[in-house]
Amino acid sequence: MARSRLTPEREAELYEAVLDLLREVGYDALTMDAVAARTHSSKATLYRQWGSKPELVAMALRHSKPVDISRIDTGSLRGDFHEMVSQSDDCQMERDTALMRGLARAVHENDDLLQALRELFIEPEITGLDVLLQRAVGRGEISADNPALKYLSHMLVGAFVAHPLIKDESMSQGFLHEYLDAVVLPALGVPADGD
Amino acid sequence: MARSRLTPEREAELYEAVLDLLREVGYDALTMDAVAARTHSSKATLYRQWGSKPELVAMALRHSKPVDISRIDTGSLRGDFHEMVSQSDDCQMERDTALMRGLARAVHENDDLLQALRELFIEPEITGLDVLLQRAVGRGEISADNPALKYLSHMLVGAFVAHPLIKDESMSQGFLHEYLDAVVLPALGVPADGD
Repeated sequence: MARSRLTPEREAELYEAVLDLLREVGYDALTMDAVAARTHSSKATLYRQWGSKPELVAMALRHSKPVDISRIDTGSLRGDFHEMVSQSDDCQMERDTALMRGLARAVHENDDLLQALRELFIEPEITGLDVLLQRAVGRGEISADNPALKYLSHMLVGAFVAHPLIKDESMSQGFLHEYLDAVVLPALGVPADGD
Repeated sequence: MARSRLTPEREAELYEAVLDLLREVGYDALTMDAVAARTHSSKATLYRQWGSKPELVAMALRHSKPVDISRIDTGSLRGDFHEMVSQSDDCQMERDTALMRGLARAVHENDDLLQALRELFIEPEITGLDVLLQRAVGRGEISADNPALKYLSHMLVGAFVAHPLIKDESMSQGFLHEYLDAVVLPALGVPADGD
């Protein structure tokens, strides 16, 4: 994929349009024609740049994340985790929750979407989390063979999926800060109360 | 709901038929007519007994659980958790995963199904888990104000949802035993290696 043909600004504009369309009509009804029309670009450009609709959607999602996790570096794992949560606001999280629910449904019916999300969206996030964890290992905060290390994403996904299911509440910063201290940090053996 | 009108055997037969139909045609196409035809009962009986399709489906799911969690009592929380996992087999878990994925999709479109599942299936499971936790508190294994106590279901749901999403593997006993030791017990402050 030759991403260099578009300026970063133009790329960002396209991704925004894809997410808007996703929210408006859902994955199934989102067509490359609709994206081309909305963004005044040609379908040929879209296919040349992204290959397919699932890849375009996955890249748009990745672009929508407000923060590159691996660049967070507060000096402690606890600080990094809480900073990660602090960089999203509740309003954005509510929007994201609605979007992800719609996509969860589409994933059941489109295996190519699941593959694209895994490769272009989920794996880069996990890689970013790993950078934080490895730094914490390097500082001696957690041991390299801590068995919970490889389940960090399970814990986080659990919070996002289970919370609305069990509690009928949308995700919030407050909940996530609490969950980090109550579950994630203790599972990793990091004292929740800081230094 | 006057459940007493049917014998337990007949009730079990009806629940089995509902789950079979769910697997065959999915929630949307499952009709009370189809259940009545499959089980040679009248729609009037079904409605009198269960009130509605979402409630019938939720009760059928609850009935399909092989074990009443609160009756597990091995003498330690670690033992109880692992016993809970040991009582399901991998084949059943794979069947359940497929079923739950189909229902996850239906839940997005049917709020009455989410309500019924929450009330008749999720809450009783959480109540069963609470019995185990309270026994562990009583034995002094965990402290009553452990902040992770209220997130046990989040941790477990996380395992079930995140595992197939991240790993492209279906759920297995082996994975769950490992996850209990690596994440759930440490988060609760219970040594994973037993006594």
